[in-house]
Amino acid sequence: MMSEVQERCCAVLEAASGSQHFVDDLWERPEGGGGNSRTVAGGGPIEKAAVNMSAVWGPAPPELAEHLTNPAASFYATGVSLIVHPSNPFAPTAHANVRYFETDNGDWWFGGGVDMTPYYLFDEDAVSFHRHIADICARHPDVADYPAWKRWCDEYFFLPHRGEARGIGGIFFDHQNSDFDQVFAFVQDLGMHLLDAYGDILAQRKDTDFDSTNLAWQRARRGRYVEFNLLWDRGTRFGIQSHGRTESILASMPPTVTFEYGGPTPSNEAEQALMDLVTGQPRDWLTP
Amino acid sequence: MMSEVQERCCAVLEAASGSQHFVDDLWERPEGGGGNSRTVAGGGPIEKAAVNMSAVWGPAPPELAEHLTNPAASFYATGVSLIVHPSNPFAPTAHANVRYFETDNGDWWFGGGVDMTPYYLFDEDAVSFHRHIADICARHPDVADYPAWKRWCDEYFFLPHRGEARGIGGIFFDHQNSDFDQVFAFVQDLGMHLLDAYGDILAQRKDTDFDSTNLAWQRARRGRYVEFNLLWDRGTRFGIQSHGRTESILASMPPTVTFEYGGPTPSNEAEQALMDLVTGQPRDWLTP
Repeated sequence: MMSEVQERCCAVLEAASGSQHFVDDLWERPEGGGGNSRTVAGGGPIEKAAVNMSAVWGPAPPELAEHLTNPAASFYATGVSLIVHPSNPFAPTAHANVRYFETDNGDWWFGGGVDMTPYYLFDEDAVSFHRHIADICARHPDVADYPAWKRWCDEYFFLPHRGEARGIGGIFFDHQNSDFDQVFAFVQDLGMHLLDAYGDILAQRKDTDFDSTNLAWQRARRGRYVEFNLLWDRGTRFGIQSHGRTESILASMPPTVTFEYGGPTPSNEAEQALMDLVTGQPRDWLTP
Repeated sequence: MMSEVQERCCAVLEAASGSQHFVDDLWERPEGGGGNSRTVAGGGPIEKAAVNMSAVWGPAPPELAEHLTNPAASFYATGVSLIVHPSNPFAPTAHANVRYFETDNGDWWFGGGVDMTPYYLFDEDAVSFHRHIADICARHPDVADYPAWKRWCDEYFFLPHRGEARGIGGIFFDHQNSDFDQVFAFVQDLGMHLLDAYGDILAQRKDTDFDSTNLAWQRARRGRYVEFNLLWDRGTRFGIQSHGRTESILASMPPTVTFEYGGPTPSNEAEQALMDLVTGQPRDWLTP
């Protein structure tokens, strides 16, 4: 299933870009398994993107024990994780993943999520993005909970040292193991439609006129993305500390970033509106 | 003493630059104390620099307990921490700090260090830099140990997920509390001469001809600097997690950075030489 999700996500992004194609990077894990990191770099509407698929297995590492119900000798984990950093400052960054984990001793769960980080806020993009996710969740009412997972996402993608949200959120869920068939069906549905709304937004925003002020704002705000991923993101930190594949984990880093002391400072109303968004209470995008 | 160290470091950097001046940013800490973050941004040989001085005090936070010999009710900490990111790719980045800590219940210690991160390696710069530090240590033979602190530095400034050193090292020391007067005299001596060697190197390299390839290499290698500081640097992580002043802590971030999947790849012998340096065993720069 994960290969189909990867294939579908790449196809949506290639269609939205109109001119770029993903390149495979197949890799093997010495302890068992491997993956395919598919990437796009520059020269088009997508400045940098990675759609990583992996399926790995082997002896259960000691640091896993605290997450398990039953002691386990071995594990299997598979997932797709993706990031899209568009060139145009008016097109938002997107991040998503779906993942499955099991041990040889009965533990299993699904996790995943999708969220969006704009540099300039378009309310209609936030609404269509959240509407699309809520609709997928609504197709699986016994196992998916959009309101709870929207809050989980808002809590997870938060930078305490800045008092800022990373973006407009989306959903985040983990350790879902209520009913295998139903959760699996939901994760499949989510995976196959992960980027439908985002693809439309990217296609619509990619050719917006912009100037050097817009580009400077995008690059400086991307600094916050770097700070979140390296200082706070538990997935990134666990991956690095458990000797995951560095290039695949850090494929999430934005392509071009600036860090200015005390910056960036909003230079117009649109930039101030983004700051009001990320420093304010999370919004409910689906109640008019 | 810390104000004099800050003053002296800024003076050395302004002289090496020849055209730039530090700007004060005075701040107060609500719980007690404050500081002055002095910065330079762009428009000259220094693309970004910060020389931060702080003196803070207040109730001892719970997470401090594990570092103390005796339970303490309050603490006092002061120090100077600095970073210099030059514009010219042939000029190295420098980082240094000196710091003092004490509690109301008898614990006290000094710490500090200075290290350099080149983008292109000049053996003579590494030698003069290490020679200068070793000479300062040699003036305080009862309390300073260049060989041991050089190793400590090599161990500290290492990126496990890349298998790379951050740069050519220098010295790193912490928890020095053998004899107050002698350690204080050493730290004063080090502080007042922290950047003497680096100032000369910056002045010599700042006008080297460079092209877009050199600049791309510098910006991509700076990505490793970001990774180290946010993923591994205990000072940065402790500062952020203990609610230190974000802007002062993250003033260390390089001004312009790129992150490329699988990159950067050395494009010439000089870049390969740097990779050989950072992926090889730490060198002894003072034995011909």
